[in-house]
Amino acid sequence: MEQKQWALDARQAAYRLAVLSVEERNAALKGIQAALKQHKETIFAQNALDMAQAEEEHLAGPLLKRLKFDEAKLADVCSGIDSLIALPDPLGKITLKRELTPGLNLYRVACPIGVIGVVFESRPDALVQIAGLCLKSGNAALLKGGREALRTNRALMEAMQEGVRHLLPAGWAALLETRDDVNDMLSQDESIDLIIPRGSNAFVKYIMEHTTIPVMGHAEGLCHTYVDASADVDMAVKVVVDAKTQALAVCNATETLLVHRDIAAAFLPKCAEALRAKGVEIRGDERTREIIACEPATNADWDTEYLDAILSIKIVDSVEEAIAHINRHGSHHTDAILTRDEEAKQKFLSGVDSAGVYVNCSTRFADGFRYGFGAEVGIATGKLHARGPVGLEGLCTYKYQLIGSGQTVQDTVDGTIQYTHRDL
Amino acid sequence: MEQKQWALDARQAAYRLAVLSVEERNAALKGIQAALKQHKETIFAQNALDMAQAEEEHLAGPLLKRLKFDEAKLADVCSGIDSLIALPDPLGKITLKRELTPGLNLYRVACPIGVIGVVFESRPDALVQIAGLCLKSGNAALLKGGREALRTNRALMEAMQEGVRHLLPAGWAALLETRDDVNDMLSQDESIDLIIPRGSNAFVKYIMEHTTIPVMGHAEGLCHTYVDASADVDMAVKVVVDAKTQALAVCNATETLLVHRDIAAAFLPKCAEALRAKGVEIRGDERTREIIACEPATNADWDTEYLDAILSIKIVDSVEEAIAHINRHGSHHTDAILTRDEEAKQKFLSGVDSAGVYVNCSTRFADGFRYGFGAEVGIATGKLHARGPVGLEGLCTYKYQLIGSGQTVQDTVDGTIQYTHRDL
Repeated sequence: MEQKQWALDARQAAYRLAVLSVEERNAALKGIQAALKQHKETIFAQNALDMAQAEEEHLAGPLLKRLKFDEAKLADVCSGIDSLIALPDPLGKITLKRELTPGLNLYRVACPIGVIGVVFESRPDALVQIAGLCLKSGNAALLKGGREALRTNRALMEAMQEGVRHLLPAGWAALLETRDDVNDMLSQDESIDLIIPRGSNAFVKYIMEHTTIPVMGHAEGLCHTYVDASADVDMAVKVVVDAKTQALAVCNATETLLVHRDIAAAFLPKCAEALRAKGVEIRGDERTREIIACEPATNADWDTEYLDAILSIKIVDSVEEAIAHINRHGSHHTDAILTRDEEAKQKFLSGVDSAGVYVNCSTRFADGFRYGFGAEVGIATGKLHARGPVGLEGLCTYKYQLIGSGQTVQDTVDGTIQYTHRDL
Repeated sequence: MEQKQWALDARQAAYRLAVLSVEERNAALKGIQAALKQHKETIFAQNALDMAQAEEEHLAGPLLKRLKFDEAKLADVCSGIDSLIALPDPLGKITLKRELTPGLNLYRVACPIGVIGVVFESRPDALVQIAGLCLKSGNAALLKGGREALRTNRALMEAMQEGVRHLLPAGWAALLETRDDVNDMLSQDESIDLIIPRGSNAFVKYIMEHTTIPVMGHAEGLCHTYVDASADVDMAVKVVVDAKTQALAVCNATETLLVHRDIAAAFLPKCAEALRAKGVEIRGDERTREIIACEPATNADWDTEYLDAILSIKIVDSVEEAIAHINRHGSHHTDAILTRDEEAKQKFLSGVDSAGVYVNCSTRFADGFRYGFGAEVGIATGKLHARGPVGLEGLCTYKYQLIGSGQTVQDTVDGTIQYTHRDL
């Protein structure tokens, strides 16, 4: 496997980033912010070229909106850097402190992962956000953005590089431009520690199938809201409307509504009316259609993330059935129960195998900013390492530091020293 | 991809294990312990058959010793179960508790990973240990042991199953018997959440290349000890001898010794004498051979885990050179500095990219029992999720529980409610 120079550069840079102080990392973030402002005209001009091409290629409206990088986006990005600077240092945090034997102390200390490869969508502001998150957490970043944003991304990266010229090791971040680069990235297992793909399930699965590097996927969300027999009907209507309609093309929107049979007659007509007022198409199972008029739901609906103004509804006989449905058909992203019953609540909290398990609130809260993480690199849909919204902490690992004064294992075998295992 | 029944059973069992109380899990561990004692004659008899076949096949002495399952091993296994029962529950631990807005509280709660597949070596006692660790942490386990131990493992598994008959869901643990089973396991990404392979680097790499399931590899260790210019010579000799010879065929033994040029003349002759008294062959670089007589080290030596009474020695000019050598040639397992200099110590602690970074003690301390974890499933050589010795905590993930009273995201957009992000 050919070693790529950009991967080797990132590896070397990672070793140097790992020993920078938080003041040095924050100063580099300040440098990036200043350089982006200084070179904004170049960046806007390159973005205009990307926009023109995207319009020629008839990109959909919402995609065009995300591609646009203007004064407003620049202001967002710069205030995002300010928030990042204000966040506490994720490195050096001690999560275990233990005397193994007198004079021999074990510390578990947060440290950077090393080199992180991120493949993300067309939003050019994501480039700056992700580079900033990686920098603050002491990681080197290999960044592949959307093809549509290439000119903008180049201009952003050039500005960022200039802003940190004497502050960071070359290789702290690099822009990858082509699909071939992504495939090369997947083979650099000696230099890259983690790959973060953001996109569809199929895309994340493709990445997983073509690399031995650990992957933290940020893919789809098939979220559920379950309305328990004991739910407050008015609250349930309000929460379900928010969970479905507050935004549509988002991973934390509710796609399937599960309703306990005992509350269905009281709840469904009110809920359907409120949803229809928001333009939502309802697809119901047979029992739902006995109560409200709607399209029939097929089995495929239970496995579909609509990302649209469509909601499937199923009536269940118990909280256990709701939990089983969610664990079988959901994407382990975020699922909510609306209930006033303590037992149902506890069953749901412990039984649902999802990154977010909610009680009496909207699934739309699944988000790093809303959790108070300050920033997020995405919402991890796997279970390992980090789960749910991933902020700075998810970009760190730890090392065990053991500080002694000449202790040997043979001493413990001979009985000259004894283990105390006393937490400090 | 064909779904295997044993994988589906494990998946269903995992959902039920996740909601058991720690009392129920501990009672099951007690049941296993009692059943192993009750059926010990059958187990010993089956082990005798495995041993006879292994002797026929001329298995090496140390392997035969590991394969043996007798009264002594049974006693070890049973006392291991007692320790496991005594350990605090790893589940339910809350690692973040935050008010997002009044009445809406976020909790990050430890929970099981789900279904864990473990491929391990010939030691039959490992089967019981790993099954116990998975059970205590609420995970379902798919266990593939060594071919040589098959009869013993079957007898052990049968006893364990009987011991938990009315206490655990069927599928809480299953024994896989063939290499085909392992390949099938690698394809069950809908049912299995994590694969833990224990073995050589090549084996772990093979597993990683053939599955999209996350892999927590437990492979080789190429550990270093660096003797800094300021080291205490006598302490250094004692620690190096322990790190190299306290056990040989182990992943935490030191394989390469790095020595600062300024201490080489004072340290190397004493150290060589002590090592030779323990029968260690020394391979040195040119500068080492100017001070002590030894075999010449080739470049290949810096990348070799001997697992034997062999030590390679290299003289370096600085702590920076030692760190660079370790990061380049090491396996990121455990590396130690022997020093009396605070600056060298800090550089080494932050600069070495390994799971264990030690000061003034033997690399042989890298072990879950010695860290006070009570038990370990292995020593992870990757950086993600868990790193270094992996105990119960490494077999857990977390979920975010968000408990509200009807909050919607639209409320926050309208300004009816405000984020407080106040840690509780």
